[in-house]
Amino acid sequence: MEPGGLLDREPVIAAVGPESFAAAMAEQGARVTRVGWEPPPLDAHLERLWRDDVDAANRVAIERLLAAHPVLVDVRPAIEVVPGMRRGLVLHAGPPIEWPRMSGPLRGAVIGALLYEGMASTAEEAARLAGSGRIDFEPCHQHAAVGPMAGVTTASMPVFVVENRTDGNHAYSTLNEGLGKVLRYGAFASEVIERLRWFRDVLGLALGAAVRETGGVDARALIGQAVQMGDECHNRNRAASALVIKALAPALAGQDLPAAERHRILAFAGGNEHFFLNLGMAACKAACDAAHGVPRSSLVTAMARNGTDFGIRVSGLGERWFTAAAGSPVGLYFTGFGAEHANPDIGDSAITETAGIGGFAMAGAPAIVQFVGGTPADALRYTELMYEITLAESPAYRIPALGFRGTPTGIDARLVMQTGILPQINTGIAHRDPGVGQIGAGLVKPPRACFDAALHALASELPDD
Amino acid sequence: MEPGGLLDREPVIAAVGPESFAAAMAEQGARVTRVGWEPPPLDAHLERLWRDDVDAANRVAIERLLAAHPVLVDVRPAIEVVPGMRRGLVLHAGPPIEWPRMSGPLRGAVIGALLYEGMASTAEEAARLAGSGRIDFEPCHQHAAVGPMAGVTTASMPVFVVENRTDGNHAYSTLNEGLGKVLRYGAFASEVIERLRWFRDVLGLALGAAVRETGGVDARALIGQAVQMGDECHNRNRAASALVIKALAPALAGQDLPAAERHRILAFAGGNEHFFLNLGMAACKAACDAAHGVPRSSLVTAMARNGTDFGIRVSGLGERWFTAAAGSPVGLYFTGFGAEHANPDIGDSAITETAGIGGFAMAGAPAIVQFVGGTPADALRYTELMYEITLAESPAYRIPALGFRGTPTGIDARLVMQTGILPQINTGIAHRDPGVGQIGAGLVKPPRACFDAALHALASELPDD
Repeated sequence: MEPGGLLDREPVIAAVGPESFAAAMAEQGARVTRVGWEPPPLDAHLERLWRDDVDAANRVAIERLLAAHPVLVDVRPAIEVVPGMRRGLVLHAGPPIEWPRMSGPLRGAVIGALLYEGMASTAEEAARLAGSGRIDFEPCHQHAAVGPMAGVTTASMPVFVVENRTDGNHAYSTLNEGLGKVLRYGAFASEVIERLRWFRDVLGLALGAAVRETGGVDARALIGQAVQMGDECHNRNRAASALVIKALAPALAGQDLPAAERHRILAFAGGNEHFFLNLGMAACKAACDAAHGVPRSSLVTAMARNGTDFGIRVSGLGERWFTAAAGSPVGLYFTGFGAEHANPDIGDSAITETAGIGGFAMAGAPAIVQFVGGTPADALRYTELMYEITLAESPAYRIPALGFRGTPTGIDARLVMQTGILPQINTGIAHRDPGVGQIGAGLVKPPRACFDAALHALASELPDD
Repeated sequence: MEPGGLLDREPVIAAVGPESFAAAMAEQGARVTRVGWEPPPLDAHLERLWRDDVDAANRVAIERLLAAHPVLVDVRPAIEVVPGMRRGLVLHAGPPIEWPRMSGPLRGAVIGALLYEGMASTAEEAARLAGSGRIDFEPCHQHAAVGPMAGVTTASMPVFVVENRTDGNHAYSTLNEGLGKVLRYGAFASEVIERLRWFRDVLGLALGAAVRETGGVDARALIGQAVQMGDECHNRNRAASALVIKALAPALAGQDLPAAERHRILAFAGGNEHFFLNLGMAACKAACDAAHGVPRSSLVTAMARNGTDFGIRVSGLGERWFTAAAGSPVGLYFTGFGAEHANPDIGDSAITETAGIGGFAMAGAPAIVQFVGGTPADALRYTELMYEITLAESPAYRIPALGFRGTPTGIDARLVMQTGILPQINTGIAHRDPGVGQIGAGLVKPPRACFDAALHALASELPDD
């Protein structure tokens, strides 16, 4: 067969942008189709950020993000390892927030944590204490920690200790509780508190001993494998969870514990498809923190939500948060629930997207669409789109469906504003009332205003060209 | 843009087949391109097999294959469960073969098995016994069993017991030994024999107790998950192995064994990426046996190799094997080895392809191409091609990369001969000398002559139309 070649036919021109281009071609007799797309309105502050020193700063920051080598090295009580942790301090997901503005699930989790720590004996008492000014609330992110959903972390909770072997920094996250009634969705019933106490008294100690005996678990290698096994390590952690259990099972099985506890530990871990989630988040936090603090860099190093506000942090902008009202996820709800029951977006788990997995790796996790809505083709598109706003492709996390291309990694806030493409975040959906728990899962985007505010701050601090 | 429509241009005709078609169109002034493809030569026997009673028989057989529900229900010594197992009987992979015609790796495995069973005390003594006529050799497949590579199975070896919950039949396979010096590749050094004795004295008993306590492991569901996690469950079993370890770890950890043995059991299982392979093969065997024995059916129910011959069995042809010389795999060799060292194709593991996974599910396992050669696009093509020779798509095993399409399942020997497309088999490559072990992995196809002979036999037994 001899198909008609491109040059055998009269050309048809699609003109995008200034009318003068289209008019000039039309004058020469060409058939011109005018396409109604225009670049986003230019902003003097944004314009000012496209310069060599910002590019150079971003090269330093992205290199640190890509070079990070997070390894699980221990499990310890938070008070022993999390910087600044103290009794009376409650860490939470997202940007800073005080009790009066907290949403239902975060309040529920705070109440549960105070009950668990023995600082109150009833929910009412805990709520009064929380609002009394005698409890300090600070973001996990400011303590090298991250937590899914409410993210509440207190002194005696065991935490994964992840070391970035490249730069030596550490990051921390609590143990995942599984589904159903759990603290991170704001539940504080006695079964929730009992489970947390078993974490403290048995599971955390056993995991810590197993990790130390094993000599550490290479979280980067494990995520790399899981991304080739259909996980995006945010809403889907099936492979990563099985792999970390496989790695720790020998040491756990060999411990000097009653047979029933050995059994319970592995049954609990094996029964939780998200056992890996918090560990993966700590690995991502360790990588993002390594990239934080590069002057003039526009690399996004945190995206986090407290259930009321969405906040981002940017490498070159120190400890500041840039916040706006948290949006609502769009997704699939469990039977009996709908958007009217949903709390606004909550949790530190968007650290996965910040580090190049989660929603950014959906092309490798097509089965996830059965959980958050959409088709496998959508999953491919989400990842393809994220290459537009990222600075690099991960050498460690590669997607078979894209010919082993690395995941889009390292959000440049400038590219977000210039393209108008917002980061794609996978997330769970919490009921807006405390104590109910998860009611669905879906997709959500950050407010554009966070990026706009951050870029204005960055631009205003740049020296003159 | 307005692309030139198909009808706006002069048609160009590609003519395939009889010249009279092309000539007739050319006479009318059309531009005709003649394509040099012809259908395979027609065969009176093959023609005779395209009839309603064969179609109806195939519908019965494929329905049984698809409906099979294999569940791991126990691990027991072969002598207790494998039909017809006795001391002095050596089961082997592939079609029947006697000692004089056996290849190096099969001879090595037989020697190892006789040493392990205490029937000889040196390799020389074992070889003499094997050739003495006092040992019986029979195919695993004739005892509801399957074994990878040499497939040698003897009385005291523990075997996975898989029950097809739909039809009640059972299938069996030994435990996978891992890589390196192992019996299935023909090694018989003392470390090989010691490992087999630990299987018999510790691992088999522990796995059996764990499986019974767990109430069984749903192999169909597990394979279904693994196929969505990048395994094709033949050359890649990473996800399936981790999932079965996760399922059994609680019961294994809780057993009343010394701490060091509990540790060793889970370390051995976790250190073997192919821990699941033999279990998966038994699951496939249970499904294929259920489809075997339907009069007039041309469904292939076994493809197996003994290292010398390749053999197939067909549902409507009873216990007969149709054999031809085994080919050589094409693939990637470990450093220092090449095709000149390779034994001809060996093992029962092509039961996976017979049941619709393995090479037939490569589209879901693009990472496998790093191991057997090729590109992820090749992996997609292999699976696409297998739809041409199969009767159905699996409802249980679905491939995300194909929009969750079921794997091509149930080879119709008629379609193989009519299309000229041979089944695609993934395989390990054994050294041709006993005792060396695996030297690579690759792809292989069955000899066309097996299918030709089977169809001639089937055609000759059909009543007149």
